[in-house]
Amino acid sequence: MIQVTLADKSVKEFPEAISGIEIAMSISPRLAKDVLSVSVNGEVWDLTRKITENASIKLFTWDDREGKETFWHTSAHLMAEAIEFFYPGTKFGIGPTVDCGFYYDVDIPEGEQLSEKDLQKIEQKILELARNNNNVVRSEISKADAINMFVKKNDELKQELIIELEDGTITLYNQGNFTDLCRGPHLPNTGYIKAIKLTSLAGAYWRGNEKNKMLTRIYGVSFPKQKMLDEYLIMLEEAKKRDHRKIGREMELFSFSESVGQGLPLWLPKGTQLRMQLEDFLKKVQKKYGYEQVMTPHIGDVKLYKTSGHYEKYGKDSFQPISTPVEGESYLLKPMNCPHHCEIYKIRPKSYKDLPVRMAEFGTVYRYEMSGELHGLTRVRSFTQDDAHIFCRPDQLKDEFKKVIDIIFIIFKALEFDNYTAQISLRDPNNPGKYIGSKENWDKAEQAIIEACQEKGLNTVTELGEAAFYGPKLDFMIKDALGRSWQLGTIQVDYNLPERFNLEYIGADDNRHRPVMIHRAPFGSMERFVAVLIEHTAGKFPLWLTPEQVVILPISEKYNDYARKVSDILNISDIRSVIDYRNEKIGRKIRDNELKRIPYLLVVGEKEAETETVSVRRQGDGDKGSMKNGEFVDYVLNEIRDQLSGLYNLN
Amino acid sequence: MIQVTLADKSVKEFPEAISGIEIAMSISPRLAKDVLSVSVNGEVWDLTRKITENASIKLFTWDDREGKETFWHTSAHLMAEAIEFFYPGTKFGIGPTVDCGFYYDVDIPEGEQLSEKDLQKIEQKILELARNNNNVVRSEISKADAINMFVKKNDELKQELIIELEDGTITLYNQGNFTDLCRGPHLPNTGYIKAIKLTSLAGAYWRGNEKNKMLTRIYGVSFPKQKMLDEYLIMLEEAKKRDHRKIGREMELFSFSESVGQGLPLWLPKGTQLRMQLEDFLKKVQKKYGYEQVMTPHIGDVKLYKTSGHYEKYGKDSFQPISTPVEGESYLLKPMNCPHHCEIYKIRPKSYKDLPVRMAEFGTVYRYEMSGELHGLTRVRSFTQDDAHIFCRPDQLKDEFKKVIDIIFIIFKALEFDNYTAQISLRDPNNPGKYIGSKENWDKAEQAIIEACQEKGLNTVTELGEAAFYGPKLDFMIKDALGRSWQLGTIQVDYNLPERFNLEYIGADDNRHRPVMIHRAPFGSMERFVAVLIEHTAGKFPLWLTPEQVVILPISEKYNDYARKVSDILNISDIRSVIDYRNEKIGRKIRDNELKRIPYLLVVGEKEAETETVSVRRQGDGDKGSMKNGEFVDYVLNEIRDQLSGLYNLN
Repeated sequence: MIQVTLADKSVKEFPEAISGIEIAMSISPRLAKDVLSVSVNGEVWDLTRKITENASIKLFTWDDREGKETFWHTSAHLMAEAIEFFYPGTKFGIGPTVDCGFYYDVDIPEGEQLSEKDLQKIEQKILELARNNNNVVRSEISKADAINMFVKKNDELKQELIIELEDGTITLYNQGNFTDLCRGPHLPNTGYIKAIKLTSLAGAYWRGNEKNKMLTRIYGVSFPKQKMLDEYLIMLEEAKKRDHRKIGREMELFSFSESVGQGLPLWLPKGTQLRMQLEDFLKKVQKKYGYEQVMTPHIGDVKLYKTSGHYEKYGKDSFQPISTPVEGESYLLKPMNCPHHCEIYKIRPKSYKDLPVRMAEFGTVYRYEMSGELHGLTRVRSFTQDDAHIFCRPDQLKDEFKKVIDIIFIIFKALEFDNYTAQISLRDPNNPGKYIGSKENWDKAEQAIIEACQEKGLNTVTELGEAAFYGPKLDFMIKDALGRSWQLGTIQVDYNLPERFNLEYIGADDNRHRPVMIHRAPFGSMERFVAVLIEHTAGKFPLWLTPEQVVILPISEKYNDYARKVSDILNISDIRSVIDYRNEKIGRKIRDNELKRIPYLLVVGEKEAETETVSVRRQGDGDKGSMKNGEFVDYVLNEIRDQLSGLYNLN
Repeated sequence: MIQVTLADKSVKEFPEAISGIEIAMSISPRLAKDVLSVSVNGEVWDLTRKITENASIKLFTWDDREGKETFWHTSAHLMAEAIEFFYPGTKFGIGPTVDCGFYYDVDIPEGEQLSEKDLQKIEQKILELARNNNNVVRSEISKADAINMFVKKNDELKQELIIELEDGTITLYNQGNFTDLCRGPHLPNTGYIKAIKLTSLAGAYWRGNEKNKMLTRIYGVSFPKQKMLDEYLIMLEEAKKRDHRKIGREMELFSFSESVGQGLPLWLPKGTQLRMQLEDFLKKVQKKYGYEQVMTPHIGDVKLYKTSGHYEKYGKDSFQPISTPVEGESYLLKPMNCPHHCEIYKIRPKSYKDLPVRMAEFGTVYRYEMSGELHGLTRVRSFTQDDAHIFCRPDQLKDEFKKVIDIIFIIFKALEFDNYTAQISLRDPNNPGKYIGSKENWDKAEQAIIEACQEKGLNTVTELGEAAFYGPKLDFMIKDALGRSWQLGTIQVDYNLPERFNLEYIGADDNRHRPVMIHRAPFGSMERFVAVLIEHTAGKFPLWLTPEQVVILPISEKYNDYARKVSDILNISDIRSVIDYRNEKIGRKIRDNELKRIPYLLVVGEKEAETETVSVRRQGDGDKGSMKNGEFVDYVLNEIRDQLSGLYNLN
């Protein structure tokens, strides 16, 4: 008799070894149709693999990351089969899944060519192979046999991979005429795959090392329904239009220079305006919540990072230490702000009455990424965290968590992120030795997070075992206008750094105690956040935030002076405006400026100059009629006030 | 016949070789009494040295830096003579002048002691020797003889110095029983020195190298009148009280941590508040003047600094390059912001209509200083420049200069620096080959600066030969409340970087032209400026700027709620307040808070709570009576508005 515990904690009994697909079938035929893979005691398995002992299982469908990964993994094998069909003798590197889809790095035989135009024929072949409905069959193999097999196949890439594996752990997967070295898991058969799109080709060094041979990387994505692919392709088109790199260039928000260095953003005037607006907004919110701003240098003595443990973590893959004319002296570009803040905490002895200390800094940090990993503002080598560290007593943890959640809500509201979820990451109950800090403190902290979320009415999922070794955390995910998920805003409890830096406060009992530390960054980093915001809004930022709020269009040169007068009036109320002085017809001016994502267009001519009015157009919302200048100022300020109500309600 | 051209361009003729003191005497006995040294064709000479050929000369008195240096230089020799008297066998290192006074590094014979308490007897001896009125006599000596002389004297420090000199250039100076190796110049005799104070003792490695022997450094300062010394000592006492390091600690503005690193300031919450207030103020002023803020990373590819020339300048004495996991890739901590701004300029092609581009950044830069050179916030290893670069056409230079002068005036006004001077630094007309850029452009630029200063009614001194090789400049010096001079605010023209970065714009003639660049930083750096401001105001900052503007003192716990209400009212108008909740008598609270440099103290009790009023005290100005809450808000805002009138007048 085999007992299987399901995700909802219910237990099912089976008389003999049973597979994931059979369990699904025993629950409902619908589920059996949807399920793609199964986790058995935390390890993801093929649906067809027999479970022979009592186990906890979880069934994964397309809605789960694990389900999608299984689906795409099989798709990669199918793509490899199709490639081998057209290009016999091809050698196969690795074929993993990515954020959305999969790729395979392949070495096409000499003399053959594989270019964008060949992708369609490969797609067709894949669909044909999929329709064959071939089973995907797992088999275990000895290391010697595995090497032998790929020696015969003349595939030294696979041979190199096998040499690094341990004997007894090696598995193969076969479908149709193709067998691949693979850890799995896979779909039961190829028939699940109904739609596929090979999205791009790129060069990639074997194992990421530029001394190795350049292989061809083929990216693809596949779906269980054609309709899903169609929707995905439309989304992809829209995403291209919203690509923050493209919009950042068009709106002159930021740029990069090879001479300064890859991944080191240059914030142009309009981008700086946008970023300062965001920073000022958060500073104001944080001030109301009792945060104090500090500023610290961008380097620290290597010894500081040995104390914090970052020196070990950011080792030879990072920016290397900076030596000086003095022997033995060396500094690191700071990868984190926390060590500096711990040092500030220590400057003055603290009593329990001094806590919580809430220390905030827009701190620019430096982390090395390989150039292939860099991407616009989302993967950079220097970025500015909207960082803060809260040093508090254990009994203050829940209250502090609630306050941070408030701040995140205010931000989401002001930036029109309506669709978000939160994940609570707790200890792995089966592995208590992994964590530092006392059980009592962990219990308290986890309870504090759970209660804080409940009291704030937050919808959360709870993941066991996802906590960092130094404390539990709460993560926010937002869905953007295209339905893509972005992680924003982490609140992380930390028992480690207070220990390493020997932070203390004197309690009401006159004894020394260790404060708890909370790391939090609602935006995450200014770079990443601005990228997300661009892609979410397609560059049409909320009025309060957008670098240019109003463009004034004089209908002829005669009204330039009046345009300047209107601009001065707007300036006094801190409304940001520009004037289009070009000698163009007014229709042309309106059309050109509609494209610039400026929310308000003010047409001014003789009538307006005489009556001290402006003719107002709202971007994408047409004519709003004529307003007195003061009336328009109030109109704009009211709209801004509405958008920032979270902030203003604090007063 | 010898023709001597004086500083005022007048020419005097003398029948034979003549000395500086004789020339002074020929002008007036008073001048002959005051003069201390003379420059002959740009080189500073002893007053008694004969001028044998036609020359341009300038006579220096105590009011000139050169005069003081001569005076202090002779004082150092006199101190050495006194030390040798008490400690025969002492070896003498170097004895230069410093900002205010001089020092000598000496090696006292083994077994002897020289401590603070010995300084007075040395002072007495110096005055006795001075009264002897011994002539100071210059003589030339061959290298061999010089070495021989100090071998006999057993002084290997001097021997080491001589070895590095070129034969034929070596001079000695003798007064009384003491002869020293010295380049000069010196006073005619020791009788000029009427007052001396040896101010401190310190250890100093020979030649600044910690592998060498530790010598004793004796600091002193001397004056031509006892009264001047008395005044100086009073000023020194006051300066100690105003030391920005002391006040910075007391007011919790900034701090340092050995773990983070020497010379790397940590801005504490109140200091950050102060600094942000200054930055926001300047940002507002600059915005009105058409500046655009940008933000750039704190590192740049080494190649960038090879292009700019900084790599050569900041060589092995600096923070060393940062390598990465990629071979051949390396970055520098940025010592300057200009290369980054040049790269931003280049992102988009520019037309003459786009100029001037005024690019501003509060950019933190990193420059290595030896640890012995570090001093509070005035000499640090990381500092934030209130930097901006103006890229303009040559014909816009004067206008841009005038605008920068306006900005500096607004700042001086808002920060109550009433006492300032300006220096225009131009080419050396005798050395035109030294400068890059065309003569035509230099003529234009120098003329532009001179006219801009005239049109702005600025009092200036003009120094020929003080321009940088890449352009002329204008420097502002302020005198602080103790009469000490600080250099603040440089406006520097630059023809070099536009050339090196190949910056261009398309002119009205459709041809490519080179823009001119202006570097300017009115504060210089936030660190240095805050230090000067602290010492100038003794920490009593102008109301608009001070981190805590108001402290509310409830007369008992019963009025804590009302105190909070008052604080909320102040908050809404952005008036920064704190509440003194301590359970102390109101008299004590007033006394304690008077010491904290908070401008306004508000006492609140029953009467105030009932009538919605506050009892107002102004720091250092006593009781201001009772005011309605709203009335007090207006009172404070008006005071701030008055202080910032320079800014508000811009509207």
